[in-house]
Amino acid sequence: MKNTDKKYSTISQAIIEMITSGKLVPGNRVPSEHELMEKYKVSNTTARKSLLYLELNGWVIRIKGKGTFVLNRSVNMHLTRVLGSLDAIRESFEENLVQEGFVPKNILLEKTILDNGISTNVNGRIYSIEGRVLKYHRLRYANNILMKDDTRFISLNACKDINLIEINQPLVRLYEEKYNLKLDNVHRSIGTDILWPGDQENYFNNDKPLSAFILNGVCIAEDDVVVEIEHSIYRGDKYSFYVNATPKLTNAEKKLSK
Amino acid sequence: MKNTDKKYSTISQAIIEMITSGKLVPGNRVPSEHELMEKYKVSNTTARKSLLYLELNGWVIRIKGKGTFVLNRSVNMHLTRVLGSLDAIRESFEENLVQEGFVPKNILLEKTILDNGISTNVNGRIYSIEGRVLKYHRLRYANNILMKDDTRFISLNACKDINLIEINQPLVRLYEEKYNLKLDNVHRSIGTDILWPGDQENYFNNDKPLSAFILNGVCIAEDDVVVEIEHSIYRGDKYSFYVNATPKLTNAEKKLSK
Repeated sequence: MKNTDKKYSTISQAIIEMITSGKLVPGNRVPSEHELMEKYKVSNTTARKSLLYLELNGWVIRIKGKGTFVLNRSVNMHLTRVLGSLDAIRESFEENLVQEGFVPKNILLEKTILDNGISTNVNGRIYSIEGRVLKYHRLRYANNILMKDDTRFISLNACKDINLIEINQPLVRLYEEKYNLKLDNVHRSIGTDILWPGDQENYFNNDKPLSAFILNGVCIAEDDVVVEIEHSIYRGDKYSFYVNATPKLTNAEKKLSK
Repeated sequence: MKNTDKKYSTISQAIIEMITSGKLVPGNRVPSEHELMEKYKVSNTTARKSLLYLELNGWVIRIKGKGTFVLNRSVNMHLTRVLGSLDAIRESFEENLVQEGFVPKNILLEKTILDNGISTNVNGRIYSIEGRVLKYHRLRYANNILMKDDTRFISLNACKDINLIEINQPLVRLYEEKYNLKLDNVHRSIGTDILWPGDQENYFNNDKPLSAFILNGVCIAEDDVVVEIEHSIYRGDKYSFYVNATPKLTNAEKKLSK
């Protein structure tokens, strides 16, 4: 089984290389199932899997009766973000996009100080930041397409004078490295909604209704200090989220139980 | 801080009890912020939090200038499902709903055997079940509202004759208890889409466009055996997902590192 997996992946990667190197450009036909079977001496299952992989990852489009064609990836990008890992949260939005071949851009829409704290609800619990809060609202683009409408509310008690520094690194890293906060927990709830064209506060410029993810999150540091409340909107046609559930027993625990 | 948390929660729970016991019924006004401050001798922050909690959890609605009123919860239910935990996956859809005070119902829409396997893509990887597959498509209701359009593809190699037994327990428990499969991993990707009224294969009976979660998942047992592929649709107006990220170091690992 792993052997088959490897074969389809090798073929897909070879075709992806032809696309990224420019040997195949958007609109070009890629080899058919039959041609792949002959060229790589593989079964039709493996050949089909290779093309399916390319299709599902946004590299090609299959048109019935016509063949499989290279897509313009910048238009058809689809991004997956990992949930449930602090390491993933530490990664920069920009760095991620650059790695994936996109050109990131941020527009700072609002930066204000709220004097009287703020509360939010995640999974039926209320989290509050008391005192002064920095509201930091950014529009985040990839290849000039708005991907995420990103609002953070940051505790000025926990992050003294954060309004006075220029933010050009992931906020979570800033909390950890500059403010020495030890992040304990990130709770997030993900809902979905429809963004209607022309709605006030809809910055996505969509001309048809667009589904979106609504993310509510809190970052908690030691002693239950709420450092940040996030309220963000991800466009649903470009994003999906990925979560992995494994049994609770970690390797370390297995070692302990021996 | 924890003390304040406890206070607002005590007040909210007292009001929830009045609602569930029938002392307050839908349409009744609940005590105002000011009344709560007097009755429980708490600050306006705590009183506000109590009402906010009730509102955000779908118990009451606040109408500007009028007050706060008990909602008909069966209409306004909002359910949260935990991602990233195998234990949560083991819980029954029905049991969850019953615990939350709803009446569950399942309609079996399709039960077929596919002879030639099936593949899916989760987070850019392709997973396949080879050989015969049971397609098991259910519509899952709470209080006669369709909540989840649920399709599973189950390996008949891994679960021999599963098509011959009556399924009235969570499938994951069936895999573990009847087939002695040791589940290693559950991968899930969550996208979003708009369900349009009148669309073929839209069973939600919505008269306005409805946002939805599209869940693609695979259950993997030992030796990389793909036991189940899931493709489900959750209605977005009633559901949200919750994920928690904690640092990777578990308590057991902390003990080990000492």
